[in-house]
Amino acid sequence: MCITIALDAMGGDFGPPVTVEGANLAIDLLKKSSTLGGVRVEFLFFGQKERIEVELGKYPKLAEISKVFHTDFIVTNEMKPIEALRHRGDSNLGMAIQSVADKKADAVVSAANTGAYIALSKVILETFHLIDRPAIPAIMPNANGRSIVLDLGANLECSVERLTQFALMGEALARVLLKKNSPSVGLLNVGSEEMKGHAIVQATGQILHLIDEKTQKYSKKEDGIRFHFHGFVEGDDIFKGVTDVVVTDGFSGNIALKAIEGAIWFFFKLLRDTMRDSIIWRIASVGVLPVLRSIKKTIDPRLYNGAVFLGLNKIAVKSHGGADAFAFAQAIKVAAQMVQSDFIEDVEKRLQLLSEIQ
Amino acid sequence: MCITIALDAMGGDFGPPVTVEGANLAIDLLKKSSTLGGVRVEFLFFGQKERIEVELGKYPKLAEISKVFHTDFIVTNEMKPIEALRHRGDSNLGMAIQSVADKKADAVVSAANTGAYIALSKVILETFHLIDRPAIPAIMPNANGRSIVLDLGANLECSVERLTQFALMGEALARVLLKKNSPSVGLLNVGSEEMKGHAIVQATGQILHLIDEKTQKYSKKEDGIRFHFHGFVEGDDIFKGVTDVVVTDGFSGNIALKAIEGAIWFFFKLLRDTMRDSIIWRIASVGVLPVLRSIKKTIDPRLYNGAVFLGLNKIAVKSHGGADAFAFAQAIKVAAQMVQSDFIEDVEKRLQLLSEIQ
Repeated sequence: MCITIALDAMGGDFGPPVTVEGANLAIDLLKKSSTLGGVRVEFLFFGQKERIEVELGKYPKLAEISKVFHTDFIVTNEMKPIEALRHRGDSNLGMAIQSVADKKADAVVSAANTGAYIALSKVILETFHLIDRPAIPAIMPNANGRSIVLDLGANLECSVERLTQFALMGEALARVLLKKNSPSVGLLNVGSEEMKGHAIVQATGQILHLIDEKTQKYSKKEDGIRFHFHGFVEGDDIFKGVTDVVVTDGFSGNIALKAIEGAIWFFFKLLRDTMRDSIIWRIASVGVLPVLRSIKKTIDPRLYNGAVFLGLNKIAVKSHGGADAFAFAQAIKVAAQMVQSDFIEDVEKRLQLLSEIQ
Repeated sequence: MCITIALDAMGGDFGPPVTVEGANLAIDLLKKSSTLGGVRVEFLFFGQKERIEVELGKYPKLAEISKVFHTDFIVTNEMKPIEALRHRGDSNLGMAIQSVADKKADAVVSAANTGAYIALSKVILETFHLIDRPAIPAIMPNANGRSIVLDLGANLECSVERLTQFALMGEALARVLLKKNSPSVGLLNVGSEEMKGHAIVQATGQILHLIDEKTQKYSKKEDGIRFHFHGFVEGDDIFKGVTDVVVTDGFSGNIALKAIEGAIWFFFKLLRDTMRDSIIWRIASVGVLPVLRSIKKTIDPRLYNGAVFLGLNKIAVKSHGGADAFAFAQAIKVAAQMVQSDFIEDVEKRLQLLSEIQ
């Protein structure tokens, strides 16, 4: 099997030096993966040819499996979606996405600005029936491993139907990226008791319970679509790893994730300040620093880079704009895992099931 | 000046052993306070007389300034608001709140369950004109000191008007508890740019900007009502201390605060696990532990205990149900600070201003 991945070479804060090195790192990353080890990979780079080729010159092995497609029109970090849409045909990002629509590539990876990327991928690639706008999931560390939290900001106000779609798509994603057979799904709420929350979260909970019931007959089948709804979860359950998937609207999801980022930043700041204030603690820090380094490794956001746009029936992966080559390689790995999985068919089956229930 | 504080002796997880010891600790706490040092304080305890008096027997000084009012009907942690309302006249909590309505006490402090406490205080005490339901604020540590975040779950879905009221009341609270002359207010959103967010947060932002403009003439007056709106803030700005007050709806606020709790829990768990896994790190932990203890002191939730119900025109303070005596004493201190301030008049002025603008 051969996987072709379209890369927006120019996106993000650094452009070709990071995206090209990232692709080079990804070659090894895929080789080491238990499921992707035997897979051949090819890259299509989109952007300013000269700048890309200078970087490719540093990695002869990568250059062998890469093609470069030139354009001078670059989607910038500040560009409004409407402006990016005007250049869907001749921009780095538009062309990269188009190559997936044209079946010249199996997936696209870009670190471009989220608004432009979502808008272009929605217009160029098809969305699933009933899905208006893709959702953005995050992969996060927790006490039991990793979990998927969605949505992260693309859908600020969510109907019952939309939250239900998030739950089904998030569950399908967890099967691929967390490698779980029957991932558990929680709906984020202000309490775990049945009567908690506003009308939309209440109604969504009831539908998810219904889907859980209806799919219990599939529990024995390996390829079944058994959906395991845990019920409501609270903000602190994200890190406790109570469920594999945590579903919420884009407003709460964005605020919760950024609040968590802030808490971690604050904690490291307190540690630094405390240690700086005392000679004894400065000496002790010889012992503290390796502990902190080990923790930073566990929560290193680079490890969790690569958000799959959920709702498209093709694979588009968003890398963080500030990603370095190591982080960008992780996003490429996510794209490869998605291509090799039955994700698209899985989501279709699930959404079909939903329309049958309603 | 003498302040009388009504205490629900039975509320919370522990009852009289904690609430009575807490009151005793509060005596010293108030004495040490720069603003409350000269103030005489009296306590009215409500609950099972025998159990309260056993505890009071341990603190003769406290017993001298305390009166006990007996009742056998106790509002439990599990009790539904509707059940508590049936016993507004003869329950520990109902009687304690009633003593404030009857001007026998200046404020009430209770660790009873939030639903029952909110319901009873709304019915027994008056709410301000236009306020439907009190909001619950949290005091939090941040990189610059402390901030006030509201709402924490009492109001899940918020209209523009309600969010605006939260902003005005939160600002008035920050003047008292954070001792700031002109606290800055931020509205929690998914981005800090003007065009971000859904319709309600957008419209609220516009009204708060308008109030900021209209009150600029007050900026020179010490007792003015200059309202300083910073604009939108994001989740990570809470800990960065970008503003003194952070306003959001109860759904997002609850989720964000619990997500932060979870992040801090996870961080300490990673530290413990990492140190346990290595002998070298166990030795180093001799140095790490005092650093961690110092950090725990900064973020000790007991220091931030005492949530003032916002929207009542009397002072009612909610202590955490799991509070120990030290934490309960903090909630009593908050009540005393509120009584001594011009908070009620301040909020009235602000809400008046709001109805003039509209």
